[in-house]
Amino acid sequence: MTDLYRRRMDRAAADAADAGLTGLLVTPGPDLTYFTGYRPTAVTERITLLVLAAGHGPRLIVPVLERPDAVEAAGAGAVTITGWADGDDPYAAAAALLDPRGRYAISDNAWALQLLGLQEALPGSRYTSMTATLPMLRAVKDADEVERLASAGAAADAAFEQILGVRFAGRTEHQIGTDLAALLLAHGHSQVDFTVVGSGPNGANPHHEMGERVITDGDMVVLDFGGLQDGYGSDTTRTVHVGEPTAEERRVHDVVREAQQAAFEAVRPGVACEEIDRIARDVITRAGYGEHFIHRTGHGIGLTTHEPPYLIAGEKQPLVPGMCFSIEPGVYLPGRFGVRIEDIVTVTADGGRRLNNTSRELHIVA
Amino acid sequence: MTDLYRRRMDRAAADAADAGLTGLLVTPGPDLTYFTGYRPTAVTERITLLVLAAGHGPRLIVPVLERPDAVEAAGAGAVTITGWADGDDPYAAAAALLDPRGRYAISDNAWALQLLGLQEALPGSRYTSMTATLPMLRAVKDADEVERLASAGAAADAAFEQILGVRFAGRTEHQIGTDLAALLLAHGHSQVDFTVVGSGPNGANPHHEMGERVITDGDMVVLDFGGLQDGYGSDTTRTVHVGEPTAEERRVHDVVREAQQAAFEAVRPGVACEEIDRIARDVITRAGYGEHFIHRTGHGIGLTTHEPPYLIAGEKQPLVPGMCFSIEPGVYLPGRFGVRIEDIVTVTADGGRRLNNTSRELHIVA
Repeated sequence: MTDLYRRRMDRAAADAADAGLTGLLVTPGPDLTYFTGYRPTAVTERITLLVLAAGHGPRLIVPVLERPDAVEAAGAGAVTITGWADGDDPYAAAAALLDPRGRYAISDNAWALQLLGLQEALPGSRYTSMTATLPMLRAVKDADEVERLASAGAAADAAFEQILGVRFAGRTEHQIGTDLAALLLAHGHSQVDFTVVGSGPNGANPHHEMGERVITDGDMVVLDFGGLQDGYGSDTTRTVHVGEPTAEERRVHDVVREAQQAAFEAVRPGVACEEIDRIARDVITRAGYGEHFIHRTGHGIGLTTHEPPYLIAGEKQPLVPGMCFSIEPGVYLPGRFGVRIEDIVTVTADGGRRLNNTSRELHIVA
Repeated sequence: MTDLYRRRMDRAAADAADAGLTGLLVTPGPDLTYFTGYRPTAVTERITLLVLAAGHGPRLIVPVLERPDAVEAAGAGAVTITGWADGDDPYAAAAALLDPRGRYAISDNAWALQLLGLQEALPGSRYTSMTATLPMLRAVKDADEVERLASAGAAADAAFEQILGVRFAGRTEHQIGTDLAALLLAHGHSQVDFTVVGSGPNGANPHHEMGERVITDGDMVVLDFGGLQDGYGSDTTRTVHVGEPTAEERRVHDVVREAQQAAFEAVRPGVACEEIDRIARDVITRAGYGEHFIHRTGHGIGLTTHEPPYLIAGEKQPLVPGMCFSIEPGVYLPGRFGVRIEDIVTVTADGGRRLNNTSRELHIVA
């Protein structure tokens, strides 16, 4: 395992040098997990910082009282770890590892407190965000990562297939969401991060989580759910209908399904991310619902559920085998209902492979 | 409720002006919860930013698809809320609310990605961390907040009293931690954030969470546990012993207990934070264990479990009635055992009030 982490760190330091950077500054969260396997118990104001720079081995500073945990991390063998104690100036300790006039990419989710501390300690240093400078650092998954995402997707599929059998009418969104969460855990998720249950008009709010609304016959219901399994994310959306849908409801669902299918079929190495977005959007626009597709088509997924690549207008990044992302077009009719269909897709040498395989038909529930 | 949030925002804007700042930039997390009651479902790369500045009403920008949730927040009535859509430049949208040459304090846990975006959009603007500039913004609790902390503390006390009755010897740290977590939830916590169970030599690592070590007769066991109840934190530590302690174990426990008591008795308005730390440390140093007390004496608590004021050498801030913080001296003997005793304490007009009241004796467990 140490070798896997060492390879990732060496590659990142080389990529940083190629991008004209002195190095990378990695803080707790998915970046640090990716490079070292280390997940501090809590992310706090106390700085933990991994410095990756060509010409140096990886160096990690940690609060001294977290050092015993850090040295147990799977990748710790490839890292020189030093502690700083309460009362020391942690930014002076961090600055000692940096080039005073260096240019560094720093983890997106590093705390502003800590970035400001570094900027003040080393006024001649310059910083840029990891995603802005090296967006694809974690975007291309290795075979093991793809299989973990596939397992998470299979668990989400199984949870969806079981939720179709529960009673919707007369129960609240919150009750359905609780059922979904329990199913995800039962199928192997270690945590559930979101269970959107958007019934009737609530479905027209793409980020409505779930509320006390009682679902009734005639409701469209958007179900968007996911979490972590074996460290990697799931993120699946299906839209179901309680009882018989109207012709318009069927039509909107068909349009979204067609958009999702067209975008999926366009996936292959070399196609730009924005092209996948455009293809989904064109289907919906041609059907007359363009103004009601109010978000990007997708986002990368891995150790987090939102990461590069983003399938959005303006993103020129070409797809590369091993990239994994959502394809999730939707149509939202304010005050009425919404429809979204979402799968996780990975890029293969000659196309795309869906990591969700449960049916995308408009299922009728009771 | 809107009035409460309006008052908090008005006071903060005035405090910022007094500190020579143009205003405050508040991002999701405890700061945003404190000022608006708004807790986005997920904190992501999409910027949500509350701008508080004297001479303007509070203004909040949110991703457009989260707007429906934002307008439902308890304090939303006091805030002008605008959405930005995927594909827009969110930093341009945020910058439009800022003075291009302004000086702003930004939430400690704002993402570096977003701070860098603002710095780039407005090169003439300057930023400082909320805690560095206005450390006491959330430090003085109102009566309602103190009572919520007291309720959380009472639940932690009840959980501790019940854990004394479970079997320790022959069970793993993980099993005891799971029991503790269940007890916190049973006594009203909505979430459990940490359950440190440090048995024998693991107790000498202050941040050891819990592991598969089987607890045996003769072990000291540090139990440090907490979470959230009604939005506010608990954080309690007690050290117990499996079977009869040795004279040395008793002595170390007595020293830590004496240090904790001395620090508590020193709490009153006007005393500097560092003085409370010094008093606890002096007791331990005089007993010959000074080098083994390897962390600060305490931290503030409220919407988070680590916030100002910090009881640490160098912190000159005088105590003010309504402040709430931990007092948690400890002694850690590497490879052998550790002892820590922690209560949450609030400053009253004439002294301190403990929000944990369960016994601080060395309890013998089975």
